[in-house]
Amino acid sequence: MKISELSRRSGVSVASIKFYVREGLLPSGIQTAANQADYSDAHERRLRLIRALIDVGGLTVARVRTVLGAIDDDSTTLHDAFGEVMHGLGDPAAGEPSPAVASALEEVLGWIDARGWTIESDAPAPLALATLVSTLRDFGMPATIHDFDDAADAALVLAEVEVAYARSMADRTAAVETMLIGTVVYERAFAEVRRIVLEATSARLEQQAGAPPKTAVRRRAPR
Amino acid sequence: MKISELSRRSGVSVASIKFYVREGLLPSGIQTAANQADYSDAHERRLRLIRALIDVGGLTVARVRTVLGAIDDDSTTLHDAFGEVMHGLGDPAAGEPSPAVASALEEVLGWIDARGWTIESDAPAPLALATLVSTLRDFGMPATIHDFDDAADAALVLAEVEVAYARSMADRTAAVETMLIGTVVYERAFAEVRRIVLEATSARLEQQAGAPPKTAVRRRAPR
Repeated sequence: MKISELSRRSGVSVASIKFYVREGLLPSGIQTAANQADYSDAHERRLRLIRALIDVGGLTVARVRTVLGAIDDDSTTLHDAFGEVMHGLGDPAAGEPSPAVASALEEVLGWIDARGWTIESDAPAPLALATLVSTLRDFGMPATIHDFDDAADAALVLAEVEVAYARSMADRTAAVETMLIGTVVYERAFAEVRRIVLEATSARLEQQAGAPPKTAVRRRAPR
Repeated sequence: MKISELSRRSGVSVASIKFYVREGLLPSGIQTAANQADYSDAHERRLRLIRALIDVGGLTVARVRTVLGAIDDDSTTLHDAFGEVMHGLGDPAAGEPSPAVASALEEVLGWIDARGWTIESDAPAPLALATLVSTLRDFGMPATIHDFDDAADAALVLAEVEVAYARSMADRTAAVETMLIGTVVYERAFAEVRRIVLEATSARLEQQAGAPPKTAVRRRAPR
């Protein structure tokens, strides 16, 4: 397809597409004339991925380039490629953790071991999680790693489906891209579910506390 | 306490503290001398909250100002204040949703109704969730709102604890601040849990597929 068609289908402006090509995020199309190139479905999927990483995942263009570099490296196993793109989403550890964070990290690692999970040593998630648990404690909240037991069980069910779906794909690039998009988009979606649940719980407790019942206000979907 | 002590306890530089005061995010301390002000524990808590909103929640300084404005408005019920700060975390809707997003929004609203939850009509979470479901479908993933059933059940258990804990606080500002910090920090923590679960699931499926078992690499916690 022409760049104008790619723009129409993806909702990304021609100028942005050209920018992503210049920045090395999107492979160039196949030159068909002096001033025209042909783009494929793979370009469209990559373009949607770039936008999801930036708009949903909040990644910078530089970070997107690093993450996509791991997708385009064909020399590793599928699992190692998944690991690399997922690790690329996280922030690298900055300096020595404080004693409070180090203690929370021991809890997180003990929990991962007890669950029988295998995680690479350079995965940024355990330290990130420990830092967040420590932040909750700084606010006087009685947070423990077991606050996440139910959420982990729920996540396991969906992870099985997601990973199996990605692994079933014949095209390796599509498999890694699918895993990456699932990671970024589902995690944002879970956060929105949690906000809905928190608001509904707050409404229920307010009502139980004796406030006059509010008329349920439903957002009307546009037709 | 002096500003230097506030800086030491919060880990935020004196220059940044002064910046937050100038920007109206942090109330000024009580002037004790021409060039000295006294800060309280409430300042320390507010400062930690500002940093969590920026560092964990990814909010801009302008967005933090809006969110904190809702905390400082004493004229509403606690539930309404919770709602307002939580809505302030989300992005306002931009224009008309596409037909695909509008259809996903109907599903989300039907799901919220079926669960018996009450959500304000200006809550940004339902549309945000619908947009994400639609994004997954754009990638050919078979996403439905029921992918979130288990996660919602898990979220309900913790939400009950979180909201009850915040509501039990005698200090209204502390209650809203606690709710806000719980929202932002727990949702990031759940995302990290999900990344751990995804990596562990990918490792297990890779091994089942016949790859030689990897030596479990454990990150060693610093001592």
